[in-house]
Amino acid sequence: MTFELQILGSGSATPMVGRHPTAQLLAVGEGRYLIDCGEGTQLRLLEQRRRLSSLRVIFISHLHGDHYFGLFGLLSTLSLQGRQEPLTVVGPPGLELVLTTQALHSQMQPGYTITFVPVDTEAHAVVYEDALVRVSSLPMRHRIPCCGYLFEEQPRRNKLVKERLPAGLSPTELSQLAQGHDLPADPATGRPALRHADVSVPAPAPRRYAFCSDTVYQPSLAELLHGVDLLYHEATFLHDLRERAAVTFHSTARQAAELAQAAEAQRLLIGHFSSRYKQLEGHLQEAQAVFAWTALATEGLVVSV
Amino acid sequence: MTFELQILGSGSATPMVGRHPTAQLLAVGEGRYLIDCGEGTQLRLLEQRRRLSSLRVIFISHLHGDHYFGLFGLLSTLSLQGRQEPLTVVGPPGLELVLTTQALHSQMQPGYTITFVPVDTEAHAVVYEDALVRVSSLPMRHRIPCCGYLFEEQPRRNKLVKERLPAGLSPTELSQLAQGHDLPADPATGRPALRHADVSVPAPAPRRYAFCSDTVYQPSLAELLHGVDLLYHEATFLHDLRERAAVTFHSTARQAAELAQAAEAQRLLIGHFSSRYKQLEGHLQEAQAVFAWTALATEGLVVSV
Repeated sequence: MTFELQILGSGSATPMVGRHPTAQLLAVGEGRYLIDCGEGTQLRLLEQRRRLSSLRVIFISHLHGDHYFGLFGLLSTLSLQGRQEPLTVVGPPGLELVLTTQALHSQMQPGYTITFVPVDTEAHAVVYEDALVRVSSLPMRHRIPCCGYLFEEQPRRNKLVKERLPAGLSPTELSQLAQGHDLPADPATGRPALRHADVSVPAPAPRRYAFCSDTVYQPSLAELLHGVDLLYHEATFLHDLRERAAVTFHSTARQAAELAQAAEAQRLLIGHFSSRYKQLEGHLQEAQAVFAWTALATEGLVVSV
Repeated sequence: MTFELQILGSGSATPMVGRHPTAQLLAVGEGRYLIDCGEGTQLRLLEQRRRLSSLRVIFISHLHGDHYFGLFGLLSTLSLQGRQEPLTVVGPPGLELVLTTQALHSQMQPGYTITFVPVDTEAHAVVYEDALVRVSSLPMRHRIPCCGYLFEEQPRRNKLVKERLPAGLSPTELSQLAQGHDLPADPATGRPALRHADVSVPAPAPRRYAFCSDTVYQPSLAELLHGVDLLYHEATFLHDLRERAAVTFHSTARQAAELAQAAEAQRLLIGHFSSRYKQLEGHLQEAQAVFAWTALATEGLVVSV
């Protein structure tokens, strides 16, 4: 099953030509999940030839403009496109009021239902679940209420091993086995009872992607993130500006890498780069010196989790 | 003195790659005025190498997202850039509440003063004035309260005619004449009294630019717009869709041209093209058949008024 992340924006508060505010698209099977929605996100999706209508849920980390100022435009466009499927928007309390104030004055009445899920940004708790993913909040420490999100694939069923299956099973029997059921003995054919566990192997462990939005360095996160397949962590500054990072509740590239190492993550993506850095080699080198499997979350990048 | 318009966005409600929502930059002398501020406008300004900090006033026509969803981001960026000069935002009532709701939840406290000027969108009245321009509202008829804006250069002083000036005038006397004053006779030199009117010619008439945002076709506007140097008028549809235009309170390219002709405008710019039109030759031909001096308001276009 697809489990793929695409970076749509890698910048921070001040936009630059070629570096847009935060937005990421996560594809899990048929599900499309948008993570943050900075100004211009709908255009980034169009540029990447992604269908806006396929979005299922939008997760917003916090109410600083570079993380959600593209949300109003995207919701309007979905309505103009004739969307009828419900949409879920997950984010900090306050987001609903901001959106309804705007909708009131634009007299915009979307043709689809928007369900708001307010998140307690200080808790680690499940905030959304469907047949494909389970999503939990990750408490961030920023200047205003802010959370990250942990996306975990739903457990997959054991995989049947063809060589262990007796000959002559009917399609119904095969389907029952595939769904995890045992088969009772069949007196008609003389086939003995068949235990699902004996004819299958466990599926790989569910894959996990952690999105750590704006936050001061929090070593304690390592526990929640332990063994994650892909970690995105903000790296607004280089480490020589660690004091400025602390004051503004941001992190450095080295801190992001230290967290990835402590969490024993498989891979690390860093992003949310301050516009003071025209080139990003410094970020990459600084992070890779601590955690080798680091890449820059540059725009358009697609990573298979 | 410079009197120059730059188009930053030519699209309508649904964005397209290469066609952004409405935004225009008007330069009058040292003054920089932004007209509408669709999503992504701050990035368009950066791409055109325009300094955001030079903006003096922002005029918003109405609260449909494609005309103001870039405002929040722009105001935030100005604050992050350390702006201290006050900024004036002119627009329909409701805009202030929308912005303050957002500011509250982002805990954004801009480092500069924003003065909101609520506009009565049903009146034609002066809504802003400084030493360079006088701006009046133009009542539009759209689905929600909406107005256009008429920008008129402040009257310039008569121009002194060098050949009509007597020899031997002191710098002070020249300056007084240049400022429009008469000079009394000077007994010391025997120079007779000098009337300003006798040594000057009238300045050209003040230039005028009219921005007619979203509106159904209103022939009655011709009177307010009479003789305008440059008219921008929306042309969302081609004339075969004039019924759809009427229902959605928009105009066609032919209607824009008919208004320009009736108003005896010098030149016409059409824009706000529906995303159903991938090519715009049809709009241009349809309008030019009625009013020859029509151009498409495509992005990046600079027009000297």
